[in-house]
Parts: sequence; C-alpha cells; structure tokens
Amino acid sequence: MKELLDQVLKEIKPSKEERELVEKIKGEVEGIAREIIAAFGYDVEPYFVGSLAKDTYLAGDHDIDLFLAFPPETPLEELRERGLGLAKAIGEKLGKYEVAYAEHPYVRALYRGFKVDLVPCYNVRDWREVKTAVDRSILHTKWILKHLNSKNDEVRLLKKFFKGINVYGSEIYIKGFSGYLTELLIIKYGSFLKVLENHDFMLRQKIIDLEGWLKKEPEVAMKTVKREADADVPLIVIDPVDPRRNVASALSWEKFGIFYFKAKQFLEKPTREFFFPEHKQIGDYKKVLREKGTKLVTLLFKKPDLIDDLLLPQLEKSAKGFMKALELQGFRVFETHWGYKDKAFIMLEVDRVERSRIEIKPGPEFFTERGLRFYSKNQKVWIRGKRLYSEKVVKEGIVDVIRELLEKNQVSLGKQVKEYIMRADILINFVPPELSDEAYLFLSREKWNLKG
Amino acid sequence: MKELLDQVLKEIKPSKEERELVEKIKGEVEGIAREIIAAFGYDVEPYFVGSLAKDTYLAGDHDIDLFLAFPPETPLEELRERGLGLAKAIGEKLGKYEVAYAEHPYVRALYRGFKVDLVPCYNVRDWREVKTAVDRSILHTKWILKHLNSKNDEVRLLKKFFKGINVYGSEIYIKGFSGYLTELLIIKYGSFLKVLENHDFMLRQKIIDLEGWLKKEPEVAMKTVKREADADVPLIVIDPVDPRRNVASALSWEKFGIFYFKAKQFLEKPTREFFFPEHKQIGDYKKVLREKGTKLVTLLFKKPDLIDDLLLPQLEKSAKGFMKALELQGFRVFETHWGYKDKAFIMLEVDRVERSRIEIKPGPEFFTERGLRFYSKNQKVWIRGKRLYSEKVVKEGIVDVIRELLEKNQVSLGKQVKEYIMRADILINFVPPELSDEAYLFLSREKWNLKG
Repeated sequence: MKELLDQVLKEIKPSKEERELVEKIKGEVEGIAREIIAAFGYDVEPYFVGSLAKDTYLAGDHDIDLFLAFPPETPLEELRERGLGLAKAIGEKLGKYEVAYAEHPYVRALYRGFKVDLVPCYNVRDWREVKTAVDRSILHTKWILKHLNSKNDEVRLLKKFFKGINVYGSEIYIKGFSGYLTELLIIKYGSFLKVLENHDFMLRQKIIDLEGWLKKEPEVAMKTVKREADADVPLIVIDPVDPRRNVASALSWEKFGIFYFKAKQFLEKPTREFFFPEHKQIGDYKKVLREKGTKLVTLLFKKPDLIDDLLLPQLEKSAKGFMKALELQGFRVFETHWGYKDKAFIMLEVDRVERSRIEIKPGPEFFTERGLRFYSKNQKVWIRGKRLYSEKVVKEGIVDVIRELLEKNQVSLGKQVKEYIMRADILINFVPPELSDEAYLFLSREKWNLKG
Repeated sequence: MKELLDQVLKEIKPSKEERELVEKIKGEVEGIAREIIAAFGYDVEPYFVGSLAKDTYLAGDHDIDLFLAFPPETPLEELRERGLGLAKAIGEKLGKYEVAYAEHPYVRALYRGFKVDLVPCYNVRDWREVKTAVDRSILHTKWILKHLNSKNDEVRLLKKFFKGINVYGSEIYIKGFSGYLTELLIIKYGSFLKVLENHDFMLRQKIIDLEGWLKKEPEVAMKTVKREADADVPLIVIDPVDPRRNVASALSWEKFGIFYFKAKQFLEKPTREFFFPEHKQIGDYKKVLREKGTKLVTLLFKKPDLIDDLLLPQLEKSAKGFMKALELQGFRVFETHWGYKDKAFIMLEVDRVERSRIEIKPGPEFFTERGLRFYSKNQKVWIRGKRLYSEKVVKEGIVDVIRELLEKNQVSLGKQVKEYIMRADILINFVPPELSDEAYLFLSREKWNLKG
C-alpha cells in the first residue's frame, strides 16, 4: 500500500520544475495586477486562492485564481463595475481574455499558457462580512494554509482518488466532492487512508465541525445543521470560516455512495486503477440490445449554447420528463441517459417501441347521466359490474407517441433546451458513431456499475 | 308496436293443440303419480309448479315440474329417503329416468317426449314452515295464479324479451331474471311495455313489495331490505310468499344494465330482433387481432365433468386469476373469456406475448447491512439517490411465464378445474375451428357490445 501510494504520488505531485514555473508565473501575474491596480488608483488587494495558492494542486493542473479584493464598504454596484473594468485591464495586459459570468461577471485570461481567472470580490475579515458567493474563497485559502499542517500530499492523493472514481467536483451536474471539502476531510481524519477507512463512519457521525462552531456560535451552527439535516444530505461539514454553510451541501447520496463502495474496494484490494482508471472496455451496444431484449430511443438535437452548469441539469430534467410521460402512455422506461458530444442527446431504454392499438376505457356507472352520454358517444360499449366500458384506439409507435406528447406540451422539459428538443431527431436502436460508446456504457450499465 | 307485439305473441304463445297436449300429459303424469303414492301409502300431495302450472310457458318450452309434497312434520332424513324412493318409482313407471342432485336428490324422467322433474318437498302453508329451498315453489305457483290476473301473455312477452337479450335465468353463471321475477314484474307494472318503460324508474325506487310485507312484517322485511341493500344489488323484490327473501337477489348489475339499455333501445325502435336475435355476424378473429394489434392467449383443456353451475363460476375465477397473475408479471390483460365447446377454454386478450428480458430490481439503501448484501449478491449494481439498483433477467415468453406461474401455484384457480388447467394446451393467436366464433365475438367485443 505504502509503495502504491508513493508511486501514485510521484506521478501526481508537481515536479520541482513545475513548482518553480508556477511560482514564477504567479509572481509575474501578481506584478502585473498590482501595477494595473496602482494605475487605477484603487484600494484593492490581489489574493491567490484555490489549489495553487494552497499548494494542493495536481501536476499539470494549474489554473490560477487571482481574486481582486475590494474594501467591504464598497457598494455592490461599484464593485461590479470597477471590478470588471479592473479585471479587463489586467486581462488585456496579460494577453488574451474573455468575460465570463457566474454570480457576477469575471475575466478569464490566458498568460503564457496558464489560465488565469480574475475575480472581483470583497476583502472580508470574517463570515459576518461576506456579501457575495466568492468572498469566502480568500478566507478558505487562509484557513487551509493555517491548518493543513503539511498534509498537502495527502490532499493530492484523495483528490486524485476522487477524480479517478469520478466523484470530484461540486458543480451542480456532478454533485461530488469539492477541492475545499477534500482538504477539510484530510484535516479532519489526518490522511488519505484514514479518510477511506472512515467511509462508513462518516455516515454515522455525519457532522464535521473543525472550527468548533457548534460551541462558539451554537445558534447559527445549529440552524445550519438542522437545515441540512432536513434536506437529508449525506454529510454536514460546517464551513470553518462560516458557520452558516455546509461545505458538503452539494454532495449527492449517489456520489457519496460511489465513494463508499470504492473506498471499501480500495481497502480490500488497492490498485492504481482507482487513481488512473483505464478506459472502460467498450462493447457493441447493438449486441447489448439484442441480449437484453430492450429498445433504445435516442433524441438527438443541436447542442444549446449553454454552460454545463445550465445545460446538463436541463437535459436531466427533460430526460426525466420523457420517462414520466412515456410511462403514462404505457411504455416502460428502464433508464435514461443524457449528455452531448457534437450534438446533445437524451437516451431512453424502453421495453418496446410498438404497443397495441387499444386501451381499455373505463366509463361511468351505467345508470347515470354521464353513463348515458358515454353510451351515446362510443361505438362499442359493454358493462362490467355497474360500470360501462369501451376501448379506444391509441398511437402505436413510440416515435409518434413522443411527437404527439411534444406537440401537446405534455413532457416536462428544461426551459432553455425545450426548443431544441422539439426539433430533435428520434432514433430507434441506432445512434451515430460518435455516440456508440455512450450507448454501450448506458445500456450495459457499465456507466454506473459500482463493480465495473 | 301493438302489431309487433301481437305478431311476436303469435309465435311464442302455445297453440291450442299444444296446450291440449300439455294438459293431457299433465293429467296422465298426475294420474300415475297419485297411483304410485297410493301404492306406497304415503300422505303426499302432488303439485305442478313452474311456468306450465302458471300457464306462463313459451311455445315448445314445456318441461313439467311435479313436486311431491310431504307433511311438514316429516323428518328431513325421511323426506329425502322416502321422497327419492317415491320419485324413482314414479319415474320408473313413466319410462326412462335418472337421479339428479340439487340441495337434495330428485328424479328427472322422460314421458312421451316431455321432461318431467319429480321433486320431493314439504307441503308448507306459509314461509314460517319453509325448510328446504324448493318448498317455496308451491307457494309461488299459488300466489302467481291468484294475482296474475290474466296477464299471462304479458309475462310471455317479457320472458321472451329477456331471453332474446340474453338476461334470462337466475343460475349463478347467468345472474339474470328468473321466471318468477318476470311474473312479479308484470304484476307490479301491469304489462310488458310498462316494465320496459320503468327500466330506469326501477333503479330509483328499487324496492318492490307486492304483498306489503314492510307493513305486515316490518322487522323481517326490513332485515331483508337492509341485507340486500348492503349487498348492493340493483333491485329488491320482497318475495310475496316469504319476507325473508329478495326474489332478485341473484340479478347482477351487468344483466340489469343490459336490460336497461335494451329496453331503451326497444322503446326507441321496436323490432322483432329483440325477441328473436339473429346470430351475430361472425368475422375473422385473426383479422381483428391484426387490426387491434393485441394478442390472444387461449388455454384449452379437457372439460371437467361438472354441471354449468359449478363449472362456469370456476372457469371465471380461473380466468380472473390468470389476469391478475399476468398483470403482476408485466403483461396487460385487456379482457378474459371462458366457456366450453368440446373442450373447455379460457381466453386472454393481452398486449403482447413477449416481453423484455430485464426487470429493474430496486435494492435497499446502500449504507445498510442489507445494502452490502445486495451489493455482494448482484453482478452489476448502481446507485440512484440512496438506493442500490440492479437488473434481473426474467422469462420472456408468455407461455413460459404461464407455465412457471402454474408450477409455482401462483394463479388463483377454481378448485375442481385446477388439475385440468395445469395440463392445458396454451395457444397463441390461434384457436381450433370450433372456437373461432367465440374468439371473434370475444376479441371484437360483439359478445358484450350493448349496441351489437
């Protein structure tokens, strides 16, 4: 085990040369930033945050986050306007840049091959001053630097493990472990292996309170615990810099569960594949379809021009919408899958693509006014018990059914993807070559198989 | 209308010659019966009952019911023994006979082409003395003779109408209108047409109490009304000779409903087809299957040697059992049908005869002991929310599924037909020629279509 971890570490830890380069670039970026700040005459402090600042980054993975911290008394409008102007000027000086949008606009620049995010924020001293979502980053960086206690490589191992088993990232479409959460888990449990050994303990004692907020700010911290417990999250990690926040609030049961089993598997049989997963063996999706006897329906459409944070949740919502609508129409939808390559897609694995043309239509009790109307309206009518029955003809092909559902607006779709889906091609038991791997992983369940 | 009814009556009323023959035969049967009774030295009175005795029989439909009434003080065992001995002796004298069984044994003889039922019973004066199910018959005959008031032909019309629309007979597998109920309805409403005009009135004022039992014996009669109302029957006709009994208790909502719509149709457009239905137009059941896109599963098996009263309800129960069991297995069963020709059959109209080989298998929450067991037991496992999932392989052909259900005893079947069904042939989309009409009427729903 020791040997394995040493070997992995050797591969993921930045080399001396890389570190020197990173430090050099950071120095240059800081110099440029300070120069422009001075030229603007702003009372702004530049801070490096993120894994580079905390020295927990993986080899080759060194995007720079430079936060431009304005005094807390700056009005929000002014922060936005001046912040963006300042960031643009720095970006200009660094080289290429573009404006990106999160809660506020920020600048994404490129400097000597390094991606540099320039993010305006408030220079807050503690959580009570936090005004925007990014303000905590500087506090996080300071707190980690103070408490990490040279466990940087343990963080690297855990981060790489999370990446390897595909549970890293707190984005809404991933719902996994963030970098900051990774660091806190190492601080809490002491090492990579200890975190893994505590994979089920974490479930039982699910509150982690490194800064002792439950004693220092019991009211605020308990409110956080209660809120998160009500939301039924797998883990509550009270943010050491802000008792109002659960660092693990974005972590889903699903990603936590994957970690739970993978940690178990790793402890039983540690291999480097957990850190460096091989590409899954890809098979023939058509063969899988034949073996399972199920059918694959793929909606293929122009990829909407949205960031993943927006696009993927809306594709998920739409896929679930199709599942529900089709089940109401008498099809079974075993699983759904969504994503994009060149085009966006929603895949549905269904029990069949044709269904019988009739549906039994139960009517009212025969001796009522409604019964008489039902009797007049239908061509064939019969009685079972007190009720009238008839049959109705329904669409039989799933493509027709989907088209009709879409026309009648009976599928719950993501708002910004709806118009694209309305014009989707609908493919049966066939996908274009670029999607054949996706189809295989989906239909074989290897996409999610914990034992895969 | 008048003309139509006169014409119908001409066809269904026994001719002068037929009546004379019937009276002659009755006289001879009575003579023989009295002779044998005298020879036995029993204190037994022979009574004619049923439609012949009441002169409400249809032309050509003249089975003779001769009841052999013993004094009420005769012990039941003695009645059975002596009654059967006496009936056999009369049957012997009449010609061919056989013993048949209802509540007690009785004798079915054949005399000059007339079927003669010889039934031992008690010679009761009123309902308080009634001991066996058949004792009321003599009282019924007397009551009708006293109250029918020359409406015999009206009874004939209504009886023929009931037969024509297939709702005549109180047998358990028919659940329609009995002959006695037909007579009481004529007495209540006055004529054939009046009964039809009251087809929906009967629904609203659902208690018919011709003998005024609700006043004369309020406690007993109310108990009857309450019991029958709780049983949710469509009509309560307190038996004029016994306030404990609802003459219409065997009438189902279904048969009542058919009468309800057919009466309506007849009043709107009276034709002789209601009395003399033409054979339904028979089509090609395979064409119906193609048009509907459904599948026909037929279980064909040796007809159990049971009377209809026992056989048909058990076939019904078994058909319903298959419906339920197959629906649990993921097939949709639209309708069932049962009966017999040379062989007995159960037909099931289903949505498909093949189904996909997989079923989603939802497991427990992943972090539980049961979750760990589920994880170890299954080859592919994944997480949705907190729960583990896997897939299982299931039988795909409906024939295999039915065989397996039968083997595992998972279909609720009629007790006396079970062993026959276990050995049934299972036919898909095909029936032997003798059943092709049944298959057509079933699949096209013309069997039950109120507008057919």
